[in-house]
Amino acid sequence: MKQSLCAAYARLAVKSGVNLSEQQTLLISADIDTVEFTRMVVEQAYEAGAREVLVTYIDSELERCQYRYQDEETLREVHDWQIDKQLDYLKKGACCMRIISPHPNALKDCDPKKMAIRARAVGEASKEVQEYTLASKAQWTIVAVPNPEWAAMVFPDQVPEKALESLWDAILKCVYVEEGIDPLITWQQRDELFQQRIAKLNSYAFQRLHFTNSLGTDLMVGLVNRHVWGGGSEVAQNNVRFNPNIPTEEVFTAPHKDRVEGRVVASRPLIYNGNVIRNFYFTFSHGKVCEFDAEEGREVLAEMLAMDEASTALGEVALVPYDSAISQSGCLFYTTLFDENASCHLALGSAYPACLEGGIAMSEEELKDKGINVSLIHVDFMFGTADMDVKGESAPGTWVPIFQNGNFVL
Amino acid sequence: MKQSLCAAYARLAVKSGVNLSEQQTLLISADIDTVEFTRMVVEQAYEAGAREVLVTYIDSELERCQYRYQDEETLREVHDWQIDKQLDYLKKGACCMRIISPHPNALKDCDPKKMAIRARAVGEASKEVQEYTLASKAQWTIVAVPNPEWAAMVFPDQVPEKALESLWDAILKCVYVEEGIDPLITWQQRDELFQQRIAKLNSYAFQRLHFTNSLGTDLMVGLVNRHVWGGGSEVAQNNVRFNPNIPTEEVFTAPHKDRVEGRVVASRPLIYNGNVIRNFYFTFSHGKVCEFDAEEGREVLAEMLAMDEASTALGEVALVPYDSAISQSGCLFYTTLFDENASCHLALGSAYPACLEGGIAMSEEELKDKGINVSLIHVDFMFGTADMDVKGESAPGTWVPIFQNGNFVL
Repeated sequence: MKQSLCAAYARLAVKSGVNLSEQQTLLISADIDTVEFTRMVVEQAYEAGAREVLVTYIDSELERCQYRYQDEETLREVHDWQIDKQLDYLKKGACCMRIISPHPNALKDCDPKKMAIRARAVGEASKEVQEYTLASKAQWTIVAVPNPEWAAMVFPDQVPEKALESLWDAILKCVYVEEGIDPLITWQQRDELFQQRIAKLNSYAFQRLHFTNSLGTDLMVGLVNRHVWGGGSEVAQNNVRFNPNIPTEEVFTAPHKDRVEGRVVASRPLIYNGNVIRNFYFTFSHGKVCEFDAEEGREVLAEMLAMDEASTALGEVALVPYDSAISQSGCLFYTTLFDENASCHLALGSAYPACLEGGIAMSEEELKDKGINVSLIHVDFMFGTADMDVKGESAPGTWVPIFQNGNFVL
Repeated sequence: MKQSLCAAYARLAVKSGVNLSEQQTLLISADIDTVEFTRMVVEQAYEAGAREVLVTYIDSELERCQYRYQDEETLREVHDWQIDKQLDYLKKGACCMRIISPHPNALKDCDPKKMAIRARAVGEASKEVQEYTLASKAQWTIVAVPNPEWAAMVFPDQVPEKALESLWDAILKCVYVEEGIDPLITWQQRDELFQQRIAKLNSYAFQRLHFTNSLGTDLMVGLVNRHVWGGGSEVAQNNVRFNPNIPTEEVFTAPHKDRVEGRVVASRPLIYNGNVIRNFYFTFSHGKVCEFDAEEGREVLAEMLAMDEASTALGEVALVPYDSAISQSGCLFYTTLFDENASCHLALGSAYPACLEGGIAMSEEELKDKGINVSLIHVDFMFGTADMDVKGESAPGTWVPIFQNGNFVL
C-alpha cells in the first residue's frame, strides 16, 4: 500500500477520529500486527500537538495462551494498574484510540467458559473506563489495519500478497481515503448528511420500529421514551466533535429493554471472542431472548447470552442502507467495525446512555428505570438484507415507512 | 533459523535463565521485533507450570518520538501504574525476563539532555523494582533475538537475509544452543567451572587489582573489604538458582567507590541510550572520573557521567578470558549483553549489593559506608585486550598473577 495513503489514513484517525486537541494525551491500544501504521499515527498525533502518546500493544496469540493455560482464579484477577493505565489519563482529559487488526479465528478453540470468566472480570473492573466511551465522556475512535491472515479470510481466492493489497484497497475505499482528495473534507460533508437524517428521525419520536424481510425476520422493537438517534460524529464532554468509528454508515438508538417481541434472523456471521457464529436467530419475548439457535458456534453464543441478566436484552438498534459503500464492496469482513456498517443491526447488552435525553448524567438505576439496558457486554449482530422493510410507529396505529427494499425512504 | 533451535533457546531462557518455578508468574518485557520468539517463551513458560505470563512489548521507535516531541515536564512524569505493573507482581514472588532485539543506533539523533531527564525520572521511580534485579531478590534473565537492522551492523558485508542468519548462528553459538545437545546440561557443566573459579578468587580476598595492557590502560582498582565474586548462576531470595545473563562469560565483583586510580582505555565501543560512543578513556582519581574524552559520542558520555554524583565512580569490575566463545566469534555485537562477555570490563554507577558479604540486607547508607557505589545508572564498558595483564594484591605488597596475555592463569 502506498505510504502516502497510509499516512492520510493515520491523519484521518487523529484528526477526524479522535480529533485530538493541542496538548491532549492520546492512549492507543494497538494489535501487534499494526506496528508500522501505529507509528504513523503516533507521529501524526505529535505533529497535531499531542502532549504524550502512550501505546499498548496487544498480541492475540498471548490471549490464546492465557485461555489455554491459566486457571479460573488467575483469569478472574484484574490488577489495579491494568485499569489505571487508562483511567488515570482519561480522568485528566486524555482521548483514546483502538487500532485493530483482526484475526477472526484466533480464539476459536478456546474454552468459551474461560473466555466468559475473563470477559466478566475485565468488564466489571473496567466499568468506569468504559463510561468514557459508552457515554462519550472522552473522544475515542476505532480504526482497522489489514494483516495477511485476515486478508486471506476476506479474499480467499487470491494469493497472499494480492489479498493483502485488496484488503487495504477495500478498507481505504470504505473510509473514503483516496488519491488527491482530502479525506477530512469528505468526512465533514458526509457527517452533515448524517446529522440531517438523525434530526428527521428524532423529530418523529417513534414508539416502535417494525422490521420484516424474506429471511424470516419479523421483529417489533420498542424504543425508550425520549430516545435520541446517534450516528456519524459525536460530541465529547469537552465539547470536541469526534468520530467514534472509522468507517461509519449507521444511525442508531436505544431499544426499550423490555419491549422487544418477535424473531430476528442474522444475515451475516458474528465474530465473538475470536469465534465465528453462523446462521443464527433469536426469538424475543418481553424484551428478552427466549429462544435461539445457530448452525455454527451455538455454545459460544450461549455463553455470551449467559454473561449477566441483561445480556439477553437489546442495547442498540441501527439502520444502515443496503447501498452503503461497505455493503456495495460485497466483502464479508468478519469484523463488526466493517460488517455492522454494511447492514441494519442490533446489539445485545448495554445501550449507549447518550441515546436517551439526559442519559449521560443518569445513574445505572435511573437508566434501567427508563428502559435502557445495562450489561457487561455490547455485541453487535447483523440482520439487514436487500429486501428489508422498516416502519416506524409515530402515533398509536400510525406507521411511517423508513426503509423499503433495504434503503431509506424517510 | 530452525524452529527447533529457537524453541531450545526459548526453553533455555525459561529453564536455565529465570528457572521458573511451578505456579510462579513471569513478567516479560520484550522488544517489538521479538514477537515470534516471545510467543515461544510464553508457551515454554506455561508448559513449565507458570501461573501467569505478562508481556509488555517495547517499541524503540516510539521512544524516539517521545524524545523528539515531549516536553521536559512530560518526560519527568512516571505514573504509578508504570511501576506497579512490575512491582505488584515482584512483591508477590514473580520472576522477570527481558527479551531484547537491539537497534544500536535507534536513539542516535535524540537530545541527550532529554534522554538523561527521562532516565533519571525512571531510575528514581524504579528504585524498588531495580532492587529485585540488582540485589537478586527475584530470579531474572536477559536474552537477545536478532533483527535485520542489528544483523546489518554486525555483518555489514552480507546481504540482509544472510546477515540475519549469521547473527542467529552467532548468538546460538554464544549461548551454547546446538543441534543434538541439551543446552541445559551444557549450562549446568559450565556453571560448575564458574563456581570453582569464583571460589578461588574469593579465597584470595584481594585488596586491589592492577590492570595493564598496550592500549594504555594502567589502572589500580581497590576492592571493597569482604567483597564477593559473582558470575554464572546466582541464587535468588527464594533459594532458586538462575542465570541472569544469557550468554555469560564473566566473573565480577565490587570495586571500592573511592579507591580507583589511573587510566583505563576502552577496547570496544559503548552503546548508551542507542548512541555509539567510540575510542574513549577515563582517568580516575580517588575513585572518580577526573578526566575523559571520546572520538565519537563525547556529549552523550558527558550526560551519562552527570547523571548523579555517583555516576563517575565504578560499580563493577569483571574478568573475561580473551579466548571466550564470544571473543573468539570475532564479532562486535554493539550490545553490552554480548560485548561485555567478550572482554574484561568495568561499569560506572551502581554496584551489586550481592558483591558484598551481607550486602543484600544493608541499607543504601550502610552500603555506601562500606565503599559500595549507589547510582541511578549502571553502564558497562569494555577494556579487555589480547595482551591484558591482571595482578591481585593478596597481602600488602604481595601480587598474584590472575591474567596473563588476556587469559586466566590463577
